[in-house]
Amino acid sequence: MNENRLQKQLQFLLEIDKLKSIYRKTYLVDGSRYENVAEHTWHLTLMAIILFEYTKAETNTLKVIKMALIHDLVEIYSGDSFAFGKYNMQQIKEKESCAAKKIFSLLPSNQGAEFLLLWKEFEAKETPEAIYANSIDRLQPLINDCYCTNKSNLEVIKQGEILKRMEIARDSIPKLWEYINSLIQDNYIMD
Amino acid sequence: MNENRLQKQLQFLLEIDKLKSIYRKTYLVDGSRYENVAEHTWHLTLMAIILFEYTKAETNTLKVIKMALIHDLVEIYSGDSFAFGKYNMQQIKEKESCAAKKIFSLLPSNQGAEFLLLWKEFEAKETPEAIYANSIDRLQPLINDCYCTNKSNLEVIKQGEILKRMEIARDSIPKLWEYINSLIQDNYIMD
Repeated sequence: MNENRLQKQLQFLLEIDKLKSIYRKTYLVDGSRYENVAEHTWHLTLMAIILFEYTKAETNTLKVIKMALIHDLVEIYSGDSFAFGKYNMQQIKEKESCAAKKIFSLLPSNQGAEFLLLWKEFEAKETPEAIYANSIDRLQPLINDCYCTNKSNLEVIKQGEILKRMEIARDSIPKLWEYINSLIQDNYIMD
Repeated sequence: MNENRLQKQLQFLLEIDKLKSIYRKTYLVDGSRYENVAEHTWHLTLMAIILFEYTKAETNTLKVIKMALIHDLVEIYSGDSFAFGKYNMQQIKEKESCAAKKIFSLLPSNQGAEFLLLWKEFEAKETPEAIYANSIDRLQPLINDCYCTNKSNLEVIKQGEILKRMEIARDSIPKLWEYINSLIQDNYIMD
């Protein structure tokens, strides 16, 4: 039993509790409030499992799940950036990269290294797992927004913007594209 | 593409959003509010991954993760029962059993059946995966309570009660028992 190793794991597990206090711009389906990043993460991870049959055969489930569960931990330090806000993307990337090193360095080195690699893979959007996880990460708020009783987000996001953002899903989950596209056409404002 | 199948999956994914509005009696570590069941689920799933090295060799990670992600969905209909409250346990079991059938029947039959079996396995606490998932489900609120700035829960739960509740972890994650036991001795009130 390595006490120091356990202490690092506990420190990480306590620190990530803060994700429950980082709020996104997506409402709960009942429109009562914004959801926070921890809830969003749980929801999209289960969504990734349920919709797994629509992705490519070579995608590894366990890798997708781990990636999904940790992909937004950086927001504990960098905060959440609304996907349709106007930002200096270079600055955000740098901020998130520092945040990733900070949060994962709390862990024992082998676990920290594994998670940092997974996070970088998610961000790079190149492997089947990263492309699928990114697709579901974007699909979850789209579905919540479209079925939400509060239509605020649908009044500010334009069809062109959301189509561009969902482009990654066209390759990753092509069988769902017709559904995604019709959701966009039916709910978002024309450009 | 089976439209009816997709509709069922979507209906389930929208319904489970309600888990974000079911609150537990565990505080966030910063003491600011109670956590809800969706956040708790995310936290304990990641905890199960991080602490996986302390459990038995024959435990299947993916099964633990799926079980963890869905184990509390019944609370959408049955509500959360505080682990140290006084209840008619038989009534709660029946309520949760009905809730499990209701929530999982929203899914296509193969997925619904898989999740219902997983939920029953979690509840039965017999397989290595169920014993480990239950241990972590109990460890997460214990850790949050002990490190929380708000000590309310520590003032009402007695050492004997929490020791009994954590007994399952002694078998499942024996290497962590010394740590768990010292947390209990140091933080909870004597019987």
